[in-house]
Amino acid sequence: MKKIKFGMVGLGRLGIQHAENIAFKIPEAELTAICAIEEERVEEIKTKWGVPYGYTDFDEMIKNNELDAVFLCSPSHLHCDQIEKALEAGLHVFSEKPLGTTLEECKRAEKAIENHPDKVFMLGFMRRYDPSYVYAKKMIDQGKIGKPFLFRGYSQDPESAIAGAIAYAGHSGGQFIDMAVHDIDLSRWLLDSEPIQTWGIGGCYKHDEFGKHKDGDNVSALLKFKNDAMAFIFAGRTAPHGYNVETEIIGTEGILRIANVPQKNLVEVLDPSGVRKECSQDFLERFETAYVDELKEFVDCIINKRKPEVTVYDGTRTTIVAYACKESFETGKLIDIQEN
Amino acid sequence: MKKIKFGMVGLGRLGIQHAENIAFKIPEAELTAICAIEEERVEEIKTKWGVPYGYTDFDEMIKNNELDAVFLCSPSHLHCDQIEKALEAGLHVFSEKPLGTTLEECKRAEKAIENHPDKVFMLGFMRRYDPSYVYAKKMIDQGKIGKPFLFRGYSQDPESAIAGAIAYAGHSGGQFIDMAVHDIDLSRWLLDSEPIQTWGIGGCYKHDEFGKHKDGDNVSALLKFKNDAMAFIFAGRTAPHGYNVETEIIGTEGILRIANVPQKNLVEVLDPSGVRKECSQDFLERFETAYVDELKEFVDCIINKRKPEVTVYDGTRTTIVAYACKESFETGKLIDIQEN
Amino acid sequence: MKKIKFGMVGLGRLGIQHAENIAFKIPEAELTAICAIEEERVEEIKTKWGVPYGYTDFDEMIKNNELDAVFLCSPSHLHCDQIEKALEAGLHVFSEKPLGTTLEECKRAEKAIENHPDKVFMLGFMRRYDPSYVYAKKMIDQGKIGKPFLFRGYSQDPESAIAGAIAYAGHSGGQFIDMAVHDIDLSRWLLDSEPIQTWGIGGCYKHDEFGKHKDGDNVSALLKFKNDAMAFIFAGRTAPHGYNVETEIIGTEGILRIANVPQKNLVEVLDPSGVRKECSQDFLERFETAYVDELKEFVDCIINKRKPEVTVYDGTRTTIVAYACKESFETGKLIDIQEN
Amino acid sequence: MKKIKFGMVGLGRLGIQHAENIAFKIPEAELTAICAIEEERVEEIKTKWGVPYGYTDFDEMIKNNELDAVFLCSPSHLHCDQIEKALEAGLHVFSEKPLGTTLEECKRAEKAIENHPDKVFMLGFMRRYDPSYVYAKKMIDQGKIGKPFLFRGYSQDPESAIAGAIAYAGHSGGQFIDMAVHDIDLSRWLLDSEPIQTWGIGGCYKHDEFGKHKDGDNVSALLKFKNDAMAFIFAGRTAPHGYNVETEIIGTEGILRIANVPQKNLVEVLDPSGVRKECSQDFLERFETAYVDELKEFVDCIINKRKPEVTVYDGTRTTIVAYACKESFETGKLIDIQEN
Repeated sequence: MKKIKFGMVGLGRLGIQHAENIAFKIPEAELTAICAIEEERVEEIKTKWGVPYGYTDFDEMIKNNELDAVFLCSPSHLHCDQIEKALEAGLHVFSEKPLGTTLEECKRAEKAIENHPDKVFMLGFMRRYDPSYVYAKKMIDQGKIGKPFLFRGYSQDPESAIAGAIAYAGHSGGQFIDMAVHDIDLSRWLLDSEPIQTWGIGGCYKHDEFGKHKDGDNVSALLKFKNDAMAFIFAGRTAPHGYNVETEIIGTEGILRIANVPQKNLVEVLDPSGVRKECSQDFLERFETAYVDELKEFVDCIINKRKPEVTVYDGTRTTIVAYACKESFETGKLIDIQEN
Repeated sequence: MKKIKFGMVGLGRLGIQHAENIAFKIPEAELTAICAIEEERVEEIKTKWGVPYGYTDFDEMIKNNELDAVFLCSPSHLHCDQIEKALEAGLHVFSEKPLGTTLEECKRAEKAIENHPDKVFMLGFMRRYDPSYVYAKKMIDQGKIGKPFLFRGYSQDPESAIAGAIAYAGHSGGQFIDMAVHDIDLSRWLLDSEPIQTWGIGGCYKHDEFGKHKDGDNVSALLKFKNDAMAFIFAGRTAPHGYNVETEIIGTEGILRIANVPQKNLVEVLDPSGVRKECSQDFLERFETAYVDELKEFVDCIINKRKPEVTVYDGTRTTIVAYACKESFETGKLIDIQEN
Repeated sequence: MKKIKFGMVGLGRLGIQHAENIAFKIPEAELTAICAIEEERVEEIKTKWGVPYGYTDFDEMIKNNELDAVFLCSPSHLHCDQIEKALEAGLHVFSEKPLGTTLEECKRAEKAIENHPDKVFMLGFMRRYDPSYVYAKKMIDQGKIGKPFLFRGYSQDPESAIAGAIAYAGHSGGQFIDMAVHDIDLSRWLLDSEPIQTWGIGGCYKHDEFGKHKDGDNVSALLKFKNDAMAFIFAGRTAPHGYNVETEIIGTEGILRIANVPQKNLVEVLDPSGVRKECSQDFLERFETAYVDELKEFVDCIINKRKPEVTVYDGTRTTIVAYACKESFETGKLIDIQEN
Repeated sequence: MKKIKFGMVGLGRLGIQHAENIAFKIPEAELTAICAIEEERVEEIKTKWGVPYGYTDFDEMIKNNELDAVFLCSPSHLHCDQIEKALEAGLHVFSEKPLGTTLEECKRAEKAIENHPDKVFMLGFMRRYDPSYVYAKKMIDQGKIGKPFLFRGYSQDPESAIAGAIAYAGHSGGQFIDMAVHDIDLSRWLLDSEPIQTWGIGGCYKHDEFGKHKDGDNVSALLKFKNDAMAFIFAGRTAPHGYNVETEIIGTEGILRIANVPQKNLVEVLDPSGVRKECSQDFLERFETAYVDELKEFVDCIINKRKPEVTVYDGTRTTIVAYACKESFETGKLIDIQEN
């Protein structure tokens, strides 16, 4: 069996996890090259895992003829450019979210992907591959909850990670772009419709630092969909209990809740604080399986020459909606979301 | 010990429960008179419980010199008028929510109450007296969750009760006035601030009948508060699982959830459907204790010549906010909520 | 309506609660007399609640012709004697558990009760009147779980109450007699059969003091029933999380669990310890409703001249079984439980 | 990196899962040979996964010089023999539980393993490698629950799998040997002591077929440990809700519960049956991760020349205890468990 040879771009905390998944979790995948700005980091991983090639320059890496695909976990503003170049070099592309940091970038990415219909492109909306979300989606598709009409999505980072969030606040694009984007994608996927209007509010309730970037430490938005469905999305940086991703879909015949009571594992502790479940502390812990399963899907698409369910248009749409929420938050106005 | 003698007005489903609580659950209270339009109903209860006086005319009843207080569980549009008359007759007044069906009525009620400072007036926001809400409020006041900044309130009636809801749809004032009003009150109470702006959306996802009254079967609103706090309120008529009242308060240091997993009692059933908890089926079941405890508070206020925490202004404020949500739902616009 | 006039015996922590329930929670009951050794305590309560009569001598109290019934919350070794005397005096009798501290006492009580068939006798197995147990029993009787074959019962007192438990250890009869007796009764009730064999084990895992009384701080017993059903009973004094009474019934078609996740109320707290529910801290908190409801049943039996479901024989049987568990614990042997 | 080459013995439902894990889930492992009686099955898997060698004869397979290790998932009565032969052939051995079907077999296996101290032997007590059990064990070792003194272990197969259980009843050794053995191992591991006495009871509550083999469809045992700790173990074949493995450890300072509310995934469903979680349906679903992780540990032991925590003596001890429970169940007597 010929293995799909990957070039990994970006070796930060999430990048290194993706690299490990490619190297050790997917039998049909191979970690052939790694690329990052920090030369030492590249050498360290190259040696540790026996990766054949190491680069500090993306353009150099994609010249490597052995590669079949690249996995982009680079800074967001580089995604679009790297997608274009990698496709041009004949490579399949997996890009971490977001697709781009501006609508213009998204549109450029769309065009590049349309120009390479034989290449597989996939975007890292990993929640769609989490077993519980997969199960919920299947139940919805089977009509188990009737017509879904209300989506509630929470994405909360733990207070324990606040220092990093503050440091990164100027580059993240803000809570709507950086965090809520996952819930925006989920709401579109699970309600099977597009948001057409939004009102976003929030504030700096604990950390004024976010205010400098016209952002809040906790924000929320209400969205109205084309099919009249509703979504309430909440993104926060100060969760006292851990990393919390919680989703609810209310339908006419049933309701589904995913991770409604957050939990780290199946252990319940009874101690002087009462009866408690501990929580996951970050996305790597909560979505460990999803990160592997999205990669499996990507590899399987390449092997079987098919396209994944998540498309570049999901990336564009989600970005447009996130920017609308952000605009509403900044202006205080109700925003009509543009068609495309 | 002299008992507080009550005249009960209205003997519908909730009225009869209140009457029973007055008659049998509060040692310091006595059910001295009952009043309802249906003469047979009055006679039946009078005989069954040995109530001394029965009336079909409110004006007649309040002439009864033995009475200390009236309990109003009459149709909403009569509340204001009856409050005025009862106070004028020298009686303490407990009124079911809503205070009035128009802002003008609320203002008239306010004036009447201000003119009788020696009388106890209380409004039936019974959730504030539910042991779990009492406990949560205490934790918040003790600073256990830091600064509360997001309120989420669900009020859902079960689909099994839909026929009655549709029949009553023309007179209820709609979901925001009839149902969401409890969550509006809770949000003000728990966030300790006033909503200043709202956007309400929703639709008829299962029962088009509500559309005739410019209402939806499920609606929601996002509210912005003076202190920048947020509230998401959802009111629905089609809950598949039962009567669901669920509240969450997110604070900077902790989060409280009340009835996050709805439950009828402490029984858990393991059967082919999985592991399940059955749910309460209506407000009488869920708030059984709260209905008694609000009455205890009212009686205690009369005896000890003090005033309850819930005031007539809570009634006015909540009505104003509910109408703002309704206006937003009907016009599609973001609504600034008037001061008073 | 003529009220049932009670004489209350014993004004300890539980006794005072029963007295309060009689005085204020049951419209058809009246607290006419109280009796306790401590004269000051009697005077204090008499004045505070306006109780007509106060006694320090049980024999004096039952001479009071106004009384209809006595409620015994006296030390266990006095129950039998007081039951005999009260019945002889023409009074209905409600006795706290246990029926007696020896089999001989139980037998004497049985005879006295048989000799007064017109009097209502009831024993304080209050758990049978807790709404969740009532609900579970109804489900079992309706065949919802098929044939029940395994009972698991936990009764745990919180470590926070350990000082009192140690002080009382010499008089309590030990964990099987003092605590497990409730689960023994529940197992007989819910499995609808009688235990015929038992093996009891345990130890002093935290507090050696119980060893002096040939007891453990935590003990358990496995019981085999006449119909082949099984019961596992655990009684402990060192629960870190609170007062824990938890019951499971496994049947051929379904399983019921009562208070499987202990909880104080419907509040869930998310804080750095994770997601938690606080627990009840003692039996008065957990069984508040049950204590009122058992009393209602007793009063209703007197008024309607019927007998309660809990009989004196439940008291005898439960005592016999508890002693068998204790004997097994002390001797290390498997014990056949005598028929009667 | 040289990969550990495995020969897989047995291709039943569990065997095929192990084979798949070896082939695709562990980068350092390779599925080099498979062996089963059914020639067609061997050919099918050989072709499908590209396995180099296929055998229908165990003795032939272990002559293959390329192999480093064998994985035994053959019928229980063959384990001991195959362990001896594989070790003699210079192979590392992973054997599914039970170690043997008689004490004599266990002793023979012990000797063989002692004679090959350079070889890694591991027994398939996979629960020890489930993330939640690993987490619980760590908490116990850190002293978080003080001194653990009561273990409760449930192992229930779903009623939906009853046909297979009945068909296999004559060969399984019965519920204690076939099912309870996992809980016996867990109790020894988590209580860190050895059981010295047991009383086992139970019956055929739904399926009389088990009676023919002197077994019950649901059984339980109480065990007393050397350090005075207690264990209650329950094994059943008629769970209405699914596959249920549930464990509790009560300590002097805290209590841990693993899978106390069984669940398939993080989805909660609210529908007319109430609020429910669906359950895992079999061990492959529940312990998917554990089966991979135990294999990882085995491979890592081989690579790093160390020994796993689970030893052959755990197999022997667990077998002795399971037989004692079985003897007690069959004779009705309290059984002293032999030292070795």
